[in-house]
Amino acid sequence: MLLLLLRRAGISGLQQASRLRSTARLCIRACSTNDSFHSQHPSLTSSESNSGSKSWRVMGTLLGLGAVLAYQEHRCRAAQESPPLYTREEVSSHNSPKTGIWVTLGHEVFDVTEFLDLHPGGPSKLMLAAGGPLEPFWALYAVHNQPHIREVLAQYKIGELNPKEKAPPTLDTSDPYAGDPLRHPALKVNSQRPFNAETPPELLTESYITPNPLFFTRNHLPVPHLDPDTYRLHIVGPPGCESLSLSLDDLYQFPKHEVTVTVQCAGNRRAEMTKVKKVKGLEWTTGAISTARWTGARLCDVLAQAGHRLSESEAHVCFVGLDSDPTGTAYGASIPLAHALDPEAEVLLAYEMNGQPLPRDHGFPVRVVVPGVVGARHVKWLGKVSVEPEESYSHWQRRDYKGFSPSVDWDTVDFDSAPSIQELPIQSAITEPQDGETIEAGEVTVKGYAWSGGGRAVIRVDVSLDGGLTWQVAELDGEKQRPRKAWAWRLWQLQAPVPAGQKELNIVCKAVDDSYNVQPDTVAPIWNLRGVLSTAWHRVHVRVTP
Amino acid sequence: MLLLLLRRAGISGLQQASRLRSTARLCIRACSTNDSFHSQHPSLTSSESNSGSKSWRVMGTLLGLGAVLAYQEHRCRAAQESPPLYTREEVSSHNSPKTGIWVTLGHEVFDVTEFLDLHPGGPSKLMLAAGGPLEPFWALYAVHNQPHIREVLAQYKIGELNPKEKAPPTLDTSDPYAGDPLRHPALKVNSQRPFNAETPPELLTESYITPNPLFFTRNHLPVPHLDPDTYRLHIVGPPGCESLSLSLDDLYQFPKHEVTVTVQCAGNRRAEMTKVKKVKGLEWTTGAISTARWTGARLCDVLAQAGHRLSESEAHVCFVGLDSDPTGTAYGASIPLAHALDPEAEVLLAYEMNGQPLPRDHGFPVRVVVPGVVGARHVKWLGKVSVEPEESYSHWQRRDYKGFSPSVDWDTVDFDSAPSIQELPIQSAITEPQDGETIEAGEVTVKGYAWSGGGRAVIRVDVSLDGGLTWQVAELDGEKQRPRKAWAWRLWQLQAPVPAGQKELNIVCKAVDDSYNVQPDTVAPIWNLRGVLSTAWHRVHVRVTP
Repeated sequence: MLLLLLRRAGISGLQQASRLRSTARLCIRACSTNDSFHSQHPSLTSSESNSGSKSWRVMGTLLGLGAVLAYQEHRCRAAQESPPLYTREEVSSHNSPKTGIWVTLGHEVFDVTEFLDLHPGGPSKLMLAAGGPLEPFWALYAVHNQPHIREVLAQYKIGELNPKEKAPPTLDTSDPYAGDPLRHPALKVNSQRPFNAETPPELLTESYITPNPLFFTRNHLPVPHLDPDTYRLHIVGPPGCESLSLSLDDLYQFPKHEVTVTVQCAGNRRAEMTKVKKVKGLEWTTGAISTARWTGARLCDVLAQAGHRLSESEAHVCFVGLDSDPTGTAYGASIPLAHALDPEAEVLLAYEMNGQPLPRDHGFPVRVVVPGVVGARHVKWLGKVSVEPEESYSHWQRRDYKGFSPSVDWDTVDFDSAPSIQELPIQSAITEPQDGETIEAGEVTVKGYAWSGGGRAVIRVDVSLDGGLTWQVAELDGEKQRPRKAWAWRLWQLQAPVPAGQKELNIVCKAVDDSYNVQPDTVAPIWNLRGVLSTAWHRVHVRVTP
Repeated sequence: MLLLLLRRAGISGLQQASRLRSTARLCIRACSTNDSFHSQHPSLTSSESNSGSKSWRVMGTLLGLGAVLAYQEHRCRAAQESPPLYTREEVSSHNSPKTGIWVTLGHEVFDVTEFLDLHPGGPSKLMLAAGGPLEPFWALYAVHNQPHIREVLAQYKIGELNPKEKAPPTLDTSDPYAGDPLRHPALKVNSQRPFNAETPPELLTESYITPNPLFFTRNHLPVPHLDPDTYRLHIVGPPGCESLSLSLDDLYQFPKHEVTVTVQCAGNRRAEMTKVKKVKGLEWTTGAISTARWTGARLCDVLAQAGHRLSESEAHVCFVGLDSDPTGTAYGASIPLAHALDPEAEVLLAYEMNGQPLPRDHGFPVRVVVPGVVGARHVKWLGKVSVEPEESYSHWQRRDYKGFSPSVDWDTVDFDSAPSIQELPIQSAITEPQDGETIEAGEVTVKGYAWSGGGRAVIRVDVSLDGGLTWQVAELDGEKQRPRKAWAWRLWQLQAPVPAGQKELNIVCKAVDDSYNVQPDTVAPIWNLRGVLSTAWHRVHVRVTP
């Protein structure tokens, strides 16, 4: 790996020499940048503690060596006066190797084009910040906040942001989405209104716990602005009993329960289904899935306090969100009462995510977390909980989030004929390398995630480099999962020799859960008109440099 | 269907005319056979009440019409004296259309070659009895015990069994299997010692409840001969508590619990895996699966009485059978304690099967029934139950009944690297038509079963007539299953037009459970060295008559 890095550095040095001629560049004294390295986004620093994954620690070590190289290569460009000024728009237009890659830190502007191939985390991760500020990324990956990295960056300074530049125009206040929160620039946005964005594959499996700002976001409606002091959660009691109206403080009085849960959107990997035949839905790739430590009151405790008991019926616990459309229709969904009342199912009314209050995009101040169950039932901005004889009449429960035969189209679909998705089936995907990438001969590292619904543990991930003809068993990272309570994913990797003379690889992964459920081979036979449950083998095609 | 039957009768009449010339035949008065129609196997009649499935009732109606035809065609062959005598061996050698098809009822011998294509249940079902007695089949399918059917049969009488013929030689008493019970001749035997046999596909989906004599049998050792009066079940108590020694009467004192459960061998459909690459194991086709109503004491009640409580550990409840090999090694297996103590899991110490005492082949007097879990844990002839810190050390728990990657062979296998199979994944198979069969143009009826482990309900079965390119949704028979307690299979069928001009069909089925788990497309990627968990799409190739 180290040798590879050094070799890459040599090659890229030559390649970049030509680019340098066309790139405006100034040399600035390194010492002038020091203050700027402190995060300008204090709201993001809270997640720093989550970022110390093993791989980043390794990268941190290598970064030290990379930095020495970089320092020697670039020491010539120091000291200059009256830096040129740039607008944010100018910076943002430099976002590719062709235009040059600019980034900002504080008020300073850097051209990091030359550093791209030296970046120890790989060029793809640095590219996520291209044309914008570094702070959101450095806030998540604390390894950057070290003096030798600041020194490296200083070599690339080309100017500063124009202090006279006005803030971007305020949003239209008649826009129902005007009050939505700021989002992390690394998120891959599928839809702005409502906001839907996935974690980029480059970062998805960097850490077992997804940092809050990078957690995939699936909103159906504008994000409501809720005051934690006046917030009340309405728990409808059984017939003859009073209802509860719980403040946040009331909720804190219930035993505090923490559980690490992977949440996956039913539409994760829909983009692969669209390639077979068009479907209705957001074009999620592999990033509509993330993992967090959720803390809150157990739903079973709150329901018990309201007087609810288990019945033999088909009763459901219905959740209504405080997000709503202009007609007042709120998001809603439900889960079976038996599931809600089972203490072993660990269903939460969560008020913390990775040790912080829920971010607004993830349901502040309270959301439902249903381990092992499709994201659509984890109702955010929770306003009301009731027990009903049947499942929720919400559109999203009865007319969406269901699977159908490939033969069913929008003319023939009968939504009542299929059950609403609750537990999800076994899923896995490759996050590294990415489809279309070119890798070097020698050895390939394949990384990804695997997860199954219903608390079923992932017991094995098979990886093929030849499109599924032969298989190798990947190494599962992290600890063994609790039986029947495997609520969180397993990250995995395989290091394998690239077969000699191979010009391309068709990399495939498939996972097995502890009920020995497996993923289907191909997409077409599980195609469905809503593009949900896209769990076929994940396939990535890469070229190999000769 | 009726027209089809009449047309078939016409065609077969012509075809049979030539066969008749070479077949010895006598005409006997019909009245002489009447007494013989009462079952000669009283031990089998107990299952008659289970045999009245809808399809057989339909066949019964058609049989009346078929009988009229047959009666007119054959009335010429009546009245004759001193019938010829045959040995059982002579009868058994007439077991194909080429040799002629003989059967016996009581002491009478019949040549039913001509009736084969007139049989309302289809020729394949009559062929199950070819060369042997009808009683075991008529005992199961009570529709046969009607006067007009007896009249039809009488037309085909050709003689009687030689009354001087001695009973078959007694079994070698030094053979540990000498004490094994008699089995139903319709069972498809995979191994005689130990006895392993599957339900033939022709009968498998004829009724939702499998008649006891046709229930697939998976024995690992000789069947023990246990005296119900002296039988004791040993329940080891927790440390500091006394153990229980329960007689059958003691067990009857626990609340009686009944549950309908499908049991499937982990090796069901192994024969398809063998076609990819050789595996170790019995060559089961699609019939190592059956369904019964089981009655007994709940294991959780018995464990509670012995003083066992739920712990957070990985404890297992270990079962030891009273079957053993010459070295004294008994069959054993285990399930997690949490599962055993969960009343909702409905784990039974069963002493009745379809309202009768357990047959000897199925564990008389007591076996374990673990709904939703692989058959290997349903320990028969149960002798001892204990709670241990880890799972059973039995060979069958730790060195068998586990799944591995296709890349693992007997040189590289590490049995400790995979969990023992407990819950099984979604499964389905086609029982009609059968692979290699020739069907008529017009309409095809496809029938089969679908089942999933863990109480997950079957929500859909897709059937393809073109190898998986296009799909149709099959009709699921029977009642909707209980949420989280779908312990029994769903039978299904699809009636569909045979595409015009098609000379052959590649029929495929695949099922979906309520966690939206699906079956994998192909066998090779789930191949494993023990040939377990063979759950790929089931494929049947048939020819279509022009």
